[in-house]
Amino acid sequence: MTKQSLFDEIQKKKSYLAVGLDTDIHKIPKHLLSCKDPLFEFNKQIIDATLPYTVSYKINTAFYEALGSKGWESLEKTAAYLPHDVFKIADAKRGDIGNTTDMYAKAFFEAMSFDAVTVSPYMGADSILPFLKYPQKWTIVLALTSNPSSADFQLQTLSNTGSALFNTVLESTSKLGSSENTMYVVGATKAEELTEIRKIVPDHFLLIPGVGAQGGSLAEVTKRGKTKECGLLINSSRNIIYASSGENFAKDAASAAQVLQEEMASYL
Amino acid sequence: MTKQSLFDEIQKKKSYLAVGLDTDIHKIPKHLLSCKDPLFEFNKQIIDATLPYTVSYKINTAFYEALGSKGWESLEKTAAYLPHDVFKIADAKRGDIGNTTDMYAKAFFEAMSFDAVTVSPYMGADSILPFLKYPQKWTIVLALTSNPSSADFQLQTLSNTGSALFNTVLESTSKLGSSENTMYVVGATKAEELTEIRKIVPDHFLLIPGVGAQGGSLAEVTKRGKTKECGLLINSSRNIIYASSGENFAKDAASAAQVLQEEMASYL
Repeated sequence: MTKQSLFDEIQKKKSYLAVGLDTDIHKIPKHLLSCKDPLFEFNKQIIDATLPYTVSYKINTAFYEALGSKGWESLEKTAAYLPHDVFKIADAKRGDIGNTTDMYAKAFFEAMSFDAVTVSPYMGADSILPFLKYPQKWTIVLALTSNPSSADFQLQTLSNTGSALFNTVLESTSKLGSSENTMYVVGATKAEELTEIRKIVPDHFLLIPGVGAQGGSLAEVTKRGKTKECGLLINSSRNIIYASSGENFAKDAASAAQVLQEEMASYL
Repeated sequence: MTKQSLFDEIQKKKSYLAVGLDTDIHKIPKHLLSCKDPLFEFNKQIIDATLPYTVSYKINTAFYEALGSKGWESLEKTAAYLPHDVFKIADAKRGDIGNTTDMYAKAFFEAMSFDAVTVSPYMGADSILPFLKYPQKWTIVLALTSNPSSADFQLQTLSNTGSALFNTVLESTSKLGSSENTMYVVGATKAEELTEIRKIVPDHFLLIPGVGAQGGSLAEVTKRGKTKECGLLINSSRNIIYASSGENFAKDAASAAQVLQEEMASYL
């Protein structure tokens, strides 16, 4: 998907929401457990219900890997089920040397048709460049994450710049590609850093988790991070997909997504 | 596996080799492609042939994920086929927030019976602690990797310590667990740094890739890195498993492993 197509979808749906399919076999409604593929059945119903309110789905691969090859099948079926006009993110946080990264690119961009994969930058450019070879595919690099221990390394100040490691990650990796094929993960709990981040990557889309369950504010993040092409994908996972746990789970997930979409519409 | 059991195996086999199963469907011998599961068939024959010379197998998950759920099945079958007395490493380089890391731990330590998983430290302690809850399981944290772009971030000097990021990764993460459940990846191409690294983690095992194909020297790495409990697992992948590509591939892989084992025996 191109940047323009993504922005077109955002304008059409008046939404910059990315629904997170962190689908946990222990948290989905009990009545689905008798289905042949409970994870896929849950996802299918969540996708059908939330589609009017979201431009993107982010699939957290860990939740599928925890179930082994059966889980990986549910992941494949979910990726294949997603309509072509939504932005499909494999939240896999891969990061390895070049020939291994080639394999991860095959896994997510060829064997499955994801538009984007999240990548950890610790091993440097080798972990990113192989993904960038794919036209209209995206690499979403971890910059400043929403979890408490993001401070352990991401916020360490570097001698040669006088600023934090995540700034150097942004500066260095943004030169590998462009705002047409690279995005960044910035946690919603780090809204105060967004102004500084926008100075380094004024045009890149940011994937922002942490609104809701982790305490980030949609208003604050939008105020500081939005660009003329929106430039934001706000991820919400648990607050949407586990909005309720009964027969109406999909309807309630849609309502939770709609609340966010309506707030987003007011900012667009 | 405990640290003592690993050292016992090292002494028994006079080897601290970890054979890397970076099994690429495009590189395995052509006559295996008609098998029902070519990746597993290749691995099975490689394992049978190399077992006398190695104490560990390191499975690079990317090569299996590239083939989708079928590849993940080959991964599961390979992990299940490995004998209980070898140290089984999932080279997955995962790294995410706590509740997601729990899922990765389930994937590698419960759904499959790996002894260890490699982890990227970029997101901090949250990416490591959930793995450490498993008794006799190991977290192998990326410290200083062997690839060219490891310099991008790992070698950046931090203001508060005056030393490189990878040193802080060692210092900080080694306090989360102990040398009984944590190891570090240090590339063989970084032998000159090993003396400094041993000052920070004198007792931890180091997993060292990069001997052979990437140019690292076994003698040099051993001289600088070996401890009284050996403290080293030297990984070799392509040089062993692709030693030849004909009917004798497994025998030739065994010979390549034996060359390394005999050199190791001379250092033990």
